[in-house]
Amino acid sequence: MSRNLQVLLAERPEGWVEPRHFRLHEAPMPSPADGQVLVRNLWLSLDPYMRGRMSAAKSYADPVDVGAVMIGGTVGEVIDSRDPALRPGDHVVGMLGWQQYGCAPARALMKVDASRVPLQAYLGPLGMPGVTAWYGLQRICEPRAGETVVVTAASGAVGSVVGQLAKSQGCRVVGVAGGAAKSRYVTDELGFDACVDYKAGRLGADLRAAVGDGAHCLFENVGGEIFDRLLGLMQPFGRIALCGMISDYNNTEPYAMRNVRAVLVQRLKLQGFIVSEHMELWPQALRELGELVAAGKLRWRESVADGLEQAPQAFIGMLRGENFGKQLVRVG
Amino acid sequence: MSRNLQVLLAERPEGWVEPRHFRLHEAPMPSPADGQVLVRNLWLSLDPYMRGRMSAAKSYADPVDVGAVMIGGTVGEVIDSRDPALRPGDHVVGMLGWQQYGCAPARALMKVDASRVPLQAYLGPLGMPGVTAWYGLQRICEPRAGETVVVTAASGAVGSVVGQLAKSQGCRVVGVAGGAAKSRYVTDELGFDACVDYKAGRLGADLRAAVGDGAHCLFENVGGEIFDRLLGLMQPFGRIALCGMISDYNNTEPYAMRNVRAVLVQRLKLQGFIVSEHMELWPQALRELGELVAAGKLRWRESVADGLEQAPQAFIGMLRGENFGKQLVRVG
Repeated sequence: MSRNLQVLLAERPEGWVEPRHFRLHEAPMPSPADGQVLVRNLWLSLDPYMRGRMSAAKSYADPVDVGAVMIGGTVGEVIDSRDPALRPGDHVVGMLGWQQYGCAPARALMKVDASRVPLQAYLGPLGMPGVTAWYGLQRICEPRAGETVVVTAASGAVGSVVGQLAKSQGCRVVGVAGGAAKSRYVTDELGFDACVDYKAGRLGADLRAAVGDGAHCLFENVGGEIFDRLLGLMQPFGRIALCGMISDYNNTEPYAMRNVRAVLVQRLKLQGFIVSEHMELWPQALRELGELVAAGKLRWRESVADGLEQAPQAFIGMLRGENFGKQLVRVG
Repeated sequence: MSRNLQVLLAERPEGWVEPRHFRLHEAPMPSPADGQVLVRNLWLSLDPYMRGRMSAAKSYADPVDVGAVMIGGTVGEVIDSRDPALRPGDHVVGMLGWQQYGCAPARALMKVDASRVPLQAYLGPLGMPGVTAWYGLQRICEPRAGETVVVTAASGAVGSVVGQLAKSQGCRVVGVAGGAAKSRYVTDELGFDACVDYKAGRLGADLRAAVGDGAHCLFENVGGEIFDRLLGLMQPFGRIALCGMISDYNNTEPYAMRNVRAVLVQRLKLQGFIVSEHMELWPQALRELGELVAAGKLRWRESVADGLEQAPQAFIGMLRGENFGKQLVRVG
């Protein structure tokens, strides 16, 4: 316990992220100040939004400084506490970043119950990805029973929750995923009504066939050509929650969208959102997601990288769609 | 009174509209059936949406058939009535199209008072363009005092009302218009805080300078490069009412938008609308617009073409931005 392995941002990427953009670093063990606790991170969440924080470009949050620890959501165990609210042995969710140990004020951490679900679920369906799915679907898409809901990156941490939530509300749900295995998983295990494999080479025809009479709701995680084509397949008065555009994150030039006119012609609502700006809804969202988990109506899948030093490669793979389900790092 | 001059759709245009796409026709004088009235059209409104109805392409309304009378809003005088609700001499607004005379059920016409404002105002600020401005601004943009509101096609029938409404609510208002004369009119006569002349050759720099710290609201009538650049100049949580994309209506290929990612990064709401789908709000909108007119706080300008046979050329000019203010035809 004398060293704290960290992953630092070594260099800002342009285009695709590569291993050289990260640097492993051994820092001294941190010690908690008054009101803080020291946490041993057990699981690190890898998420597409982190790509944005690696760039200096204007965005909704400050970029990670070059030379600083990469930011990230974590779940871990309190090993030292200087705040009466938390005790050693407590499990907590926080934003302690890509490192083995971290200090944070107790009020910036959320104590979680590791006895009911696996600890890492608090980084997935019962964490930020789950609440993201809930917020975009319930507050922007507002689907009604019988409507068609389309979800891109359907096998991922967010998309899988979106589709299962929509199914539980009586919607017809169409997923879009990359590859035959993910597509089969989306229909056979997650219970979506259909899934389009965007790698199969018939994107336009397959989307038209799967969407049928048009989508009332679209939960968009991918952007690019898939998003552009789906814009042209919306029902009048359709609602689109724009959650991510991962296909664009590594392009130096953005994809040029040709179907924006559909927003006018079909009177669509297109809205971007960031779940961390709606913290007041997290308790409600987590309660509803927890009920679905307890009822066995919410399934998920994890891709686990073993050891913090694997985090850069796992992150790079996730940006290429090589993960299958929620991408985690067992910090070890 | 034995002939009824009409303008028919002769051919569907691809790209720019030309005179050959229309045909003048002399039809027999129509006679009203039971419950109908015969109206002599005094003014015809020319509006960008008509371009869409000339195409067979999927849109929110059925296209005009080839060989049929062009659709259009009109104001005129009842000359024969077979419904007790209207009498000869009454002035009515309706959708009687590009022709000198038309029959319609009395319930499809709105009786208007010609003593308080010029009759043709019911085709402008106190008609569909005015309500369009009101709806998009009040129900989609929802501007608050002190916010910056950007309006494209600012000297036009819709844009001029949008800007003056927003000014009356304490907003900072920036217009975009084509040419120095229109831009001067927008600031000096309509009272906008600034206006960018998109023909001046410095579009990007001029928009950045005029918008300043970013737009909270955008009322978009134009589309294309102007819209794409304005997407990149929005404040976080900005609201965009997408009312028209006139710059695209005559392109065979749509403009490729590069800044859609701003919807995500800035958490924008972008919504398309068609005012005729919100008829329940017309009374409220017309009451509020009428109060502004009565208070001398709503000014407008008209481009008048004399005689129905001039309508095609006036319409073609409007699509090229050659009109200045509301484009009307004095049917004569």
